[in-house]
Amino acid sequence: METNEKQFVQEITPMEVDFPQWYTDVIKKTDLVDYSPVKGFMVIKPYGYALWEEIQRDMDRRFKETGHKNCYFPLLIPESLLNKEKEHVEGFAPEVAWVTHGGSERLAERLCVRPTSETIICSMYAKWLNSYRDLPFLYNQWCSVVRWEKSTRPFLRTSEFLWQEGHTIHETYEEAQEETLRMLQVYKASAEELMAIPVVVGQKSDREKFAGAHATYTMEALMHDGKALQAGTSHNLGQHFTKAFDINFQGRTGEIEFPYQTSWGVSTRLIGGIIMVHGDNRGLVLPPRMAPIQAVIIPIAQNKGGVLEEAEKIHNELKNLGIRVETDADTTNTVGWKFNEYEMKGVPVRIEIGPRDIKKSQVMVARRDTLEKEAVPIENLGLHIAKLLDDIHDNMFEKAKKMRDEKTYTIDNYDDFKKKMKESPGFMKAMWCGDRECEEAIKEETGATIRCIPFEQEKISDVCPFCGKKAKHMVYLARAY
Amino acid sequence: METNEKQFVQEITPMEVDFPQWYTDVIKKTDLVDYSPVKGFMVIKPYGYALWEEIQRDMDRRFKETGHKNCYFPLLIPESLLNKEKEHVEGFAPEVAWVTHGGSERLAERLCVRPTSETIICSMYAKWLNSYRDLPFLYNQWCSVVRWEKSTRPFLRTSEFLWQEGHTIHETYEEAQEETLRMLQVYKASAEELMAIPVVVGQKSDREKFAGAHATYTMEALMHDGKALQAGTSHNLGQHFTKAFDINFQGRTGEIEFPYQTSWGVSTRLIGGIIMVHGDNRGLVLPPRMAPIQAVIIPIAQNKGGVLEEAEKIHNELKNLGIRVETDADTTNTVGWKFNEYEMKGVPVRIEIGPRDIKKSQVMVARRDTLEKEAVPIENLGLHIAKLLDDIHDNMFEKAKKMRDEKTYTIDNYDDFKKKMKESPGFMKAMWCGDRECEEAIKEETGATIRCIPFEQEKISDVCPFCGKKAKHMVYLARAY
Repeated sequence: METNEKQFVQEITPMEVDFPQWYTDVIKKTDLVDYSPVKGFMVIKPYGYALWEEIQRDMDRRFKETGHKNCYFPLLIPESLLNKEKEHVEGFAPEVAWVTHGGSERLAERLCVRPTSETIICSMYAKWLNSYRDLPFLYNQWCSVVRWEKSTRPFLRTSEFLWQEGHTIHETYEEAQEETLRMLQVYKASAEELMAIPVVVGQKSDREKFAGAHATYTMEALMHDGKALQAGTSHNLGQHFTKAFDINFQGRTGEIEFPYQTSWGVSTRLIGGIIMVHGDNRGLVLPPRMAPIQAVIIPIAQNKGGVLEEAEKIHNELKNLGIRVETDADTTNTVGWKFNEYEMKGVPVRIEIGPRDIKKSQVMVARRDTLEKEAVPIENLGLHIAKLLDDIHDNMFEKAKKMRDEKTYTIDNYDDFKKKMKESPGFMKAMWCGDRECEEAIKEETGATIRCIPFEQEKISDVCPFCGKKAKHMVYLARAY
Repeated sequence: METNEKQFVQEITPMEVDFPQWYTDVIKKTDLVDYSPVKGFMVIKPYGYALWEEIQRDMDRRFKETGHKNCYFPLLIPESLLNKEKEHVEGFAPEVAWVTHGGSERLAERLCVRPTSETIICSMYAKWLNSYRDLPFLYNQWCSVVRWEKSTRPFLRTSEFLWQEGHTIHETYEEAQEETLRMLQVYKASAEELMAIPVVVGQKSDREKFAGAHATYTMEALMHDGKALQAGTSHNLGQHFTKAFDINFQGRTGEIEFPYQTSWGVSTRLIGGIIMVHGDNRGLVLPPRMAPIQAVIIPIAQNKGGVLEEAEKIHNELKNLGIRVETDADTTNTVGWKFNEYEMKGVPVRIEIGPRDIKKSQVMVARRDTLEKEAVPIENLGLHIAKLLDDIHDNMFEKAKKMRDEKTYTIDNYDDFKKKMKESPGFMKAMWCGDRECEEAIKEETGATIRCIPFEQEKISDVCPFCGKKAKHMVYLARAY
């Protein structure tokens, strides 16, 4: 067993040695994903897709609780529609896939595979909206989008990914702004409560905002390697699209008005975040509330009388409590192999039961987050495990927060910034003048971008440490995925 | 109120007058769907999408109960992959959309937007399969597919539609055949138990089978206009694709073997079936188990004291029982308008509550399927409604079965067949020689196709009434959507 374990662990490159390789090893060896015959397109395997299903279930419930309904808009968008909003087409046209033929016929107009659906949705909203009484429209869709990428990495950046896109229109700017921030908070709540990922929320700089947005808000998470991941964005689109698409309505005073719009999205990229925030050198560490298998039961010496029967009893007790439980009684693999396998797959809780345990009316319970193992009485085991899953969630969140805080630095001069970015990358909190040229120079010289202007502002100093001008905001900077 | 009602009903063309127009009126006026700017592509609006969500929920549960897992394969398929199975490419190439450019670059190889995913999935299964111990693979995906259609109708035939596609491989032919029939039974169970649609199940003729299949099985439903709808298909693909894609494994004897494959799918087309099986001249009649709103509460004289409070109490009682309930207390619409609106939208149960009802400790309960209305005590109303929803389901299923049986004819000569097809179209049960030429002549002359060779065979006569040759099977024929 000892040997077995070592061999297993050695298959995953330690993250300190080569973080990108660690990531690749983990996603491949845990069967989350595979490379497809189409360059830049991934296949999401059942274990990876089950994570997406849990994210969908959680988010979809939150969307519905905040009054949104799902619908479905076409995959293909006529080129003329994409072209209607100037900034939008400039942002997206370079990375769309174009359909030119339907069957054997050349199309009169090219259609792009949706990179995002603002334009086609706006064309429909223009048909549907008449009066202020119709507002707001609060719609969402779950689908895949295509953005042609030169360099890709599964979950983090792929030419096709799965996501949801919410699209709303409102009577007033204030309501649109309220919606934009509400959905950012919904994302934050899901990141924290489901995924155990602490996030920094704030506004994007103009340079980093969505193509066509009035303002973009984001939640940013920090990975083990000190790089940031943009984990979800919510845009106040103002009237940019509603005017371009002539979406209008008769207002309360009888005048024709243009509504204010929002859009917001999260994607399968979140799975990459979960891996890189929680994972360790043994593989995945899955947040208990979204783990496809929350507890695995491993019978020991299962040929001995009563072991499988007792395992089944426990299995049913857990299942009845709504815990996603599996029993691995396969005889072709050793117990040691199983321990490693489920550890690598990030299963939060392992329950071992053998003849000696049964004699003592106990089982051994191992938790994935701390790797601790303890004897627990069989009586009321289900309730114990349910509570343990919550404890693991809390511990994983605190651990991730601690990791993030340890890699978050307050910076007041550019030399320190450059040194830190090189030696111990992470979130850099610094003042910023607000100028785009300054922002671009930082990126050019260090690879770091402004991740956001956080809602929680601190005053570090009066001047921008990068250019010496008067400071406007405190910002988070980092290199990012 | 009377006038209001009449006006409303008049907006929907009676189905006896013009069935296609009735269908179009219903889907538009009940806000299920809209036409998009891309010809042949539909927008599924929230009320329509909610129906799809219920179908997904029900089917997905059944798939998982039968051991299947979800995953996701790329949207785009290289042309060379599509070309690998000869019959398959001949069947699908004429109707696929081709992507020729990614961003500003022309692609070295054209990619087709998936019309179905056998080919890309086979290319992955070839990588994943090693030993008989790995089998079976039991995977499914929920996605959209594109098939370029010349003439389209929302839900029934559109250039893009939403569906699920199950793809499995097995060690033996027998296991694949068992799976093929199991999933057909899963579809049948969902059609009957969720959608209240009776179906005929059987095998497709060679002419009608899936491009590349060894054998195709189908469930067929009969619409109000006497036309059939293919509502779900399950294919035994034999080794056609596994050999073409070189999917092989080391068998129990050490020899290299090719697995046997199945695929099976249902789509948003089912929503068209639900409309055309259950709908009437007032609009939709939704099967209670999948109705987005199962019961609507309409307060009468809601400005009177206690009405809204009592409505809310009932609302909460129903909600706590898991009933999808809405209360419409909007004051801009009249009560009469609301009655019509929810009738048109097919809401199974309407609960009216006003001051006079409260005095008598009762409410008025109207059911959509029979349009009957009765006084029901407020006490234990929730349980009454829960039972009523089941009764409505049963009644709708029986009604649909009666309708189908009345339109099912046993035919033993071609003249009768032609006369019936003209005067009262429906399912025609007849013997058939099994020859493709005969089948094609029937289609040419009458527009009818062989819907299936049903599992439940009857012997009507010894000869094929169409050509006089010796009969092989009893078949169902009909014109179809």
